[in-house]
Parts: sequence; C-alpha cells; structure tokens
Amino acid sequence: MSTQTPSTLRVAPDPSSPRLTRAVTGVDQTGASIGLRVVEERPLTIYLNSREIVTAMTIGDHPEWLALGFLVNQGMVRAADEVTGIDYDEELETVVVRTAVETDHEAKLARATRTSGCAVGTVFGDMMEGLEGLTLPPTPLHVRDLNALSSAINRTPSLYLEAGAIHGTCLCRGPDPLAYFEDVGRHNAVDKLAGWMRDTGTDPADKTLYTTGRLTSEMVIKCALMGVPILVSRSGFTAWGVEIARQVGLTVIGRMKGSRFVCLSGEGRVIWDAE
Amino acid sequence: MSTQTPSTLRVAPDPSSPRLTRAVTGVDQTGASIGLRVVEERPLTIYLNSREIVTAMTIGDHPEWLALGFLVNQGMVRAADEVTGIDYDEELETVVVRTAVETDHEAKLARATRTSGCAVGTVFGDMMEGLEGLTLPPTPLHVRDLNALSSAINRTPSLYLEAGAIHGTCLCRGPDPLAYFEDVGRHNAVDKLAGWMRDTGTDPADKTLYTTGRLTSEMVIKCALMGVPILVSRSGFTAWGVEIARQVGLTVIGRMKGSRFVCLSGEGRVIWDAE
Repeated sequence: MSTQTPSTLRVAPDPSSPRLTRAVTGVDQTGASIGLRVVEERPLTIYLNSREIVTAMTIGDHPEWLALGFLVNQGMVRAADEVTGIDYDEELETVVVRTAVETDHEAKLARATRTSGCAVGTVFGDMMEGLEGLTLPPTPLHVRDLNALSSAINRTPSLYLEAGAIHGTCLCRGPDPLAYFEDVGRHNAVDKLAGWMRDTGTDPADKTLYTTGRLTSEMVIKCALMGVPILVSRSGFTAWGVEIARQVGLTVIGRMKGSRFVCLSGEGRVIWDAE
Repeated sequence: MSTQTPSTLRVAPDPSSPRLTRAVTGVDQTGASIGLRVVEERPLTIYLNSREIVTAMTIGDHPEWLALGFLVNQGMVRAADEVTGIDYDEELETVVVRTAVETDHEAKLARATRTSGCAVGTVFGDMMEGLEGLTLPPTPLHVRDLNALSSAINRTPSLYLEAGAIHGTCLCRGPDPLAYFEDVGRHNAVDKLAGWMRDTGTDPADKTLYTTGRLTSEMVIKCALMGVPILVSRSGFTAWGVEIARQVGLTVIGRMKGSRFVCLSGEGRVIWDAE
C-alpha cells in the first residue's frame, strides 16, 4: 500500500527512526527463519517538580509532550498552572515537568483511586467530578470528512504500518489530520497529543479525536475533559463509555470499517453527506 | 459462524449473561437506526485485608478470581501466604482478599513504581527481580496442537463474538482449552486466570497461555512469573518483551493468523508437525 503524509499534518510518527523500532529474527510456522521489525518499549519516569508520579512504558518519542499531557489529563497540571520548564534526561530515562507554584497533587496522590484495565493512576473520582457542568461545543461532523480523514490516516506512514502492535491517535479538523501520535499504550498516545495541544495552545473546540483504541469509560472521559467534542475509533464501545458520552453530550463513533460506522452518542453533530 | 464449547473447558465466558452485555441503539453511517450489544464495564475496588489496593474496571464476572489473581500477579499475595477468605460485595462493588498474616504490601505500595501504557500498579522493579534465577520447564509445543487450539478458541461462544471490544485469555494443555476468561483489559483477563489457577491449584508447568493482547514486557513478565512456559497471541510484539522472553527462556509466539505465526523466543520447545 502506498503511503502519503497529509500536508496538513504538523507532527507525525517517524517509522524510519532507529530509536523506535528494532529488527529481530525468529522462525515462522514452518521453522524457517524470518526477519521483522518490532516496536521499542522503554520506561520513562515522570516527575512533577520534585515528586515522582509514574513510570510510563513508551516507544520513547516526544517524552516532554507525554509527561506534560499525562499530568494535564490526570488533572495534576491545570490550565491556570504555569509550566516553567520540562527537562528530559535520556540517560536516566526521566522527565521533570516544572510549575511556578507547587500544586495540590500530593493530596490527589494520597487519595488516588488507581484503576486498571488499560488505565493507570487515574484519579477517577476527580475525573468524574470534572465532567459535571461540562459542555462541549456543537461542532459539526460531516460524514464525508470522516471518510476522507480515515483514508488519510490509514495511508500516513506509521509505526503501525512498519511494525504493528501499537496504538495511534490523531487530532483532526474537518477532513484534515493535524497531529498524529503513536505509542504502545493507547492512553499514552492520547496523553502525548494532550501535551502537544497544551504546548501549542491548540483549541480543542472544533476538533475530532481519532483513536485506534476502544471507547471505554476512561477514553471517553479523557476526550471530554480535553474539550474535544467528537471521538472516533475503529474499535468498539463499552456500556459505561456510551453512558458517560451521552451524559456529557460527546459525539462518539466506533466500529469504523471502510465507510461503515456506528454512532452511539451525540448524533446531533453528524451531517449525513456521505458520497 | 457456528460456535461450539470445547468439552475440555472447565470455565468459559457467558455471552448470554445479561450482566455482562447491554443492548444499545444508535445510528449507522446513513443515519439509519441500528441496535447492538456492548460489553459492560464497572469499577471493582480490591482490598488486601484492610488496605485498599486498586480499583479495576471490569465486566464484572469472577470478581473473587480477579482480585486474587491481581494480588498474586503483583506479588502482594505470595505462594506461602495463606488466603483465609475472599469477600465480594456486589452492592459496594468491592472485594476483600484476606490472608492469615499481614504481608509486606504496605512497603511495596510505598515504593511502588506504577506503570502506564496498559499496565497499572505494577511493582515493576520487584517483578524484574522475580525473574532472576527463574527457570521454565521444557514443555513441548506441537504446532498441530497450536492450530487445533486456535480454532477451538475462535469457535467458543464468547463476549468478543457477541459484543466485541474485549480481550480474552485461555489456559491450555496441548490442544485443549481448559480455562477461558475475558475482560475489558487484557491484564484483567490474565489476572482472573491467575486467580483461578491459584484457587484450583492448577500446575502451570505443562500449560500454554493464549492471549488476544499484545506481547509487551509486562505481559511476558506476567506469564513467566505465573510459571507458564509458553505464551501465544494473535497480536504482535515489543522489542523489550522479546528481550525479556529470551532472557528467561519463555517461548513466545505472536502474529498468529490462521496457521501462520512468528516465534521470537524459545523455539526449542516447538515441534514442527503442522499438517
């Protein structure tokens, strides 16, 4: 399949980077030797000022955006908190996000409800509270644009096309992909995007968030708290994810295959103009 | 596709259970109404004696095995620790695992390195230590059995076939599936299996662990620490997962599609007798 990077993409994965994939050899089902590339996976310990927060398993590109986005999405760095610096130490595999004023994260950590099942360290109670009173803008979603988007993303050079076993997320406006990130964990990919959005001052209101991951409660909550009104995936849903999406008025589209999809929330934004 | 439950399966998902899936309606790509089933997802807070450990997002079957297996796989309940009871409270959505003697989990939690990217609360340093000196038995893997296994699992009634968006894991002996678990998170599914193995006193030495999830470092470590010498997935690998598997002598097979697969570690166990 021929690949092509959309001209609108401001940041995209680099599948040719030797840091991100590794050549390995093994055997196939007949015992014959076979060579392939697999994605790298390395630990990155994230600090907020002097406090160690979490160790993320990541492919290792964009550690600063991953750290910033993780902390933003966990509510540990808020909109009003001034970020004074982000220091990545490749040798120590650490990244420190510094804020002008110490935040109340210690209190959060003490009562943190850590969740599992493809989620981590989520201060779940706080996130659910953060949804109360949240309103998302009535940004339209043209089905025609969604199809163009899906094709463009699938044709973009990626680590997934190169080595598989990786999740991707892409922030889009209308039919245009703007920022495409990949990582071993689907939440890490979205956190990188959140870090980039914060760093570039990108407005979420007129955007679509595309993810390869499933539309679970945590993914729905994350997208809503990021302020993006439309969430799209080729994967499926969970009941709670659908419930929360309907409560906050998030448009959620899943099971995308070719031009087919299912919309289980926020159908009001969709404009049915498929060709 | 016709389904059939293998006679060797002692525990399997129940796709007809109204507790595990929910009927929802939405619209498709033309705006036409469409009905489908999606998997349930609910929080379950796990306690070890009086200490709250984690909140897992789960479909909600087998909470006792999930809790026990999670604690066993985290190293918080060891082989020598006597489990005196497991109390599940459906209304409070909690499960308490009780041991005869308080363990050193508090020390573990204090220095816990929580990992992200589809992992949670993993005391990663401890797990890596646990691998030192570990030896896994030279249990043979017949390719013919692997193919039979793969077919059997794919034809077994499951939540995946019913509603999608779910991970599964199956413990097998030779060509026979023995215990099949599913959950929203691939690690939760494996933890349920570990709880079942502990509860039933099942020997891991002559078994194969099949998972739908990717073969990341954490999945490889988990399988090795469970004492199962063969790990199989239809998904792909990460470089570190392959590295660790080779270090501990675990047989790892991925990218299974039909009769095709790639073996990147422990080829010595494989007997190439495909039909």
